[in-house]
Amino acid sequence: MISVEQHLRRILDTVQQLPAFEVGVVEAQGCVLAEDVAARVQLPGFTNSAMDGYAVHAADVGGATEQSPAVLPVVNDIAAGNTQALSLAPGQSMRIMTGAPMPRGADAVVPVELTDGGLARVAVREEVRVGQHVREAGDDVRSGDVVLKAGTYLGPPQVALLAAVGSARVRVVPKPRVVVISTGDELVEPGRVPGFGQVVDSNSLMVAAAVRAVGAEPFRVGGVPDDAAALREALEGQLVRADAIITTGGVSMGAYDTVKEVLSRVGTMQFDKVAMRPGMPQGFGTLGEDRVPVFTLPGNPVSALVSFHVFVAPALRAMAGRPGAPWPPASAQAVAAEGWRSVPGKTEFTRVTSDGGRVRPAGGQGSHMLGSLSAADALAVVPPEVTEVRPGDALATLPLLGVDAP
Amino acid sequence: MISVEQHLRRILDTVQQLPAFEVGVVEAQGCVLAEDVAARVQLPGFTNSAMDGYAVHAADVGGATEQSPAVLPVVNDIAAGNTQALSLAPGQSMRIMTGAPMPRGADAVVPVELTDGGLARVAVREEVRVGQHVREAGDDVRSGDVVLKAGTYLGPPQVALLAAVGSARVRVVPKPRVVVISTGDELVEPGRVPGFGQVVDSNSLMVAAAVRAVGAEPFRVGGVPDDAAALREALEGQLVRADAIITTGGVSMGAYDTVKEVLSRVGTMQFDKVAMRPGMPQGFGTLGEDRVPVFTLPGNPVSALVSFHVFVAPALRAMAGRPGAPWPPASAQAVAAEGWRSVPGKTEFTRVTSDGGRVRPAGGQGSHMLGSLSAADALAVVPPEVTEVRPGDALATLPLLGVDAP
Repeated sequence: MISVEQHLRRILDTVQQLPAFEVGVVEAQGCVLAEDVAARVQLPGFTNSAMDGYAVHAADVGGATEQSPAVLPVVNDIAAGNTQALSLAPGQSMRIMTGAPMPRGADAVVPVELTDGGLARVAVREEVRVGQHVREAGDDVRSGDVVLKAGTYLGPPQVALLAAVGSARVRVVPKPRVVVISTGDELVEPGRVPGFGQVVDSNSLMVAAAVRAVGAEPFRVGGVPDDAAALREALEGQLVRADAIITTGGVSMGAYDTVKEVLSRVGTMQFDKVAMRPGMPQGFGTLGEDRVPVFTLPGNPVSALVSFHVFVAPALRAMAGRPGAPWPPASAQAVAAEGWRSVPGKTEFTRVTSDGGRVRPAGGQGSHMLGSLSAADALAVVPPEVTEVRPGDALATLPLLGVDAP
Repeated sequence: MISVEQHLRRILDTVQQLPAFEVGVVEAQGCVLAEDVAARVQLPGFTNSAMDGYAVHAADVGGATEQSPAVLPVVNDIAAGNTQALSLAPGQSMRIMTGAPMPRGADAVVPVELTDGGLARVAVREEVRVGQHVREAGDDVRSGDVVLKAGTYLGPPQVALLAAVGSARVRVVPKPRVVVISTGDELVEPGRVPGFGQVVDSNSLMVAAAVRAVGAEPFRVGGVPDDAAALREALEGQLVRADAIITTGGVSMGAYDTVKEVLSRVGTMQFDKVAMRPGMPQGFGTLGEDRVPVFTLPGNPVSALVSFHVFVAPALRAMAGRPGAPWPPASAQAVAAEGWRSVPGKTEFTRVTSDGGRVRPAGGQGSHMLGSLSAADALAVVPPEVTEVRPGDALATLPLLGVDAP
């Protein structure tokens, strides 16, 4: 029996960040940048107006007031998108729109609200400082500056920044492509009515959904029967497109545990009992020339989802170049609203519902109980030495992936 | 000038939950259920073994110990997926795998670890209680039970549960399809080098990415010039596929503010100054027979993204049937690590970086500053009456959508 920490460490020591790949910035959303990106242009690209108003020489409107406005001729009209290089002589003004290029010579903008809005002549009712309402070229980003470093996660602002500084394509760590296979003669496809002794293959749907929720790309192969040749064929066929493979089922003590039978003799696969509940039988290793990581999760749905959160999600994040949460999680995130017993000598993952940081078990805790799993929003992590959680105890929690957050 | 609360209230009073739509459970991930779902089958569907071991009559192994094992003939072998209805006579046993159907008559399972693992005869070294290691049919979900209620957000466990109880297709509130249009003569497509007076259309990329980050489906139309006919045509062409439309730019005080010009006379559109910084000029209303909500955001990138978080994201969540975060957010989420000034009379959204709940401004706060926006992970909400944030002040924050979280 090994500890959760030992199994996780072996996994994280084995998986590697995926090779970088060039994509368009739209596809880069949700990926991690694999290179430092330097600005090819400055931002703003040209000195421009921060307001709708009038470009002026500030000196020409010095001392202007409501009672004694400064009146200037309006000699031009500059819209955003105007690509002419204009010049403003002293004593004159030009009407200018937000984002439009400042004419050479002008050193301030009078917002339209501080004027009479005139078209041929404008009366300015308030003075402006030199530089006021003007965005200097390069005041946000200078050309050549590294704007985003390798390792940066690309969310909406970063995608926009890359486009703005001229990097319409960038090298990123791609999202892992994850093949999901469930095993078992008892499985029938969703939509079919299971006969006596059969169950709907809901595991592969759940694991594929969890893969998507952690930001990777699932390929659901679905149910493979308990047949060594069929499983071997499915695995070999999927290796080409997989950055990782997840199986569920077939890793226990049973006589027909095909996953264990097929994989225990290949690659670096290793099967262990991990001191956790649920989720004790775990397997992990790599397959094929490309050393594709393979996670063999237990077949009980709750065991499979707990194992995914504890072992697979951190591995997929590491493969994607994303930072992982520390293990074990900080122990002060939640407070037990009621007490419950926990098994000695194993890390117990109690399915809980949270209400403002107070957690309580979400119904039946059997490892086959999908109904009560669906009522939970987090896993409370009860350490091996704790046999009883008391009301008020501080607990570490793992939020369930893909749960809605406002 | 209206308050943030007033503008948000008008939006949330106008938008409606989208009509329900039937989809397969795989596509249902990330949607809200539009109907109560009752189980068509019980879970487990049949009484089955929780362990790999031997199905027995508990009475037959009563008092068994290491020293004095109970020895039973093994008359059959039951794998998971066995669809035969078997019966176990007293005094006999059957080898059984996890998830395999219990034979009639058997009332307990002896785990293989407590036996000699025999194939013809098995020596049982420990007694078991009636019902031990047996999962009774229906102990998780009874047939006819409502397993998920209308309004439930569908994450990985819920998708699996729907499939398991026989609901391979369900009625959900679909993800809003959101058309994103940016406006301005100055815009060039990402990948093109902007000339003098031009800028890359990064806004539509950013807003489309934010739409995706909030769980809706973006359609990026991109830049439309400041031309009333072109904008009208773009809007009319997109109405058919849009559950909502977002525009950026063209809503300020300028002479060429085409969005305002085209939309101020149609539908229920209304343009307001909202007491916030950045993001003062806002427009909202509905267009067309289907009363498609239209959000006209300001064109400065920081203003657009702040407006998206404050007004559009809550509306898209409401349209998707998902609960919204309260406004204003709870004021004790973060602590200012340093002080900064805030404009009086307006809600200020300071772009901040968070470090363990301590926030500080993320560089330049100009509304055009995409570079410093990209360094931020949250918006600190500084209320209108606050003109100075002091170190140690408690602050409400809005996390930026699409930022990575471990």
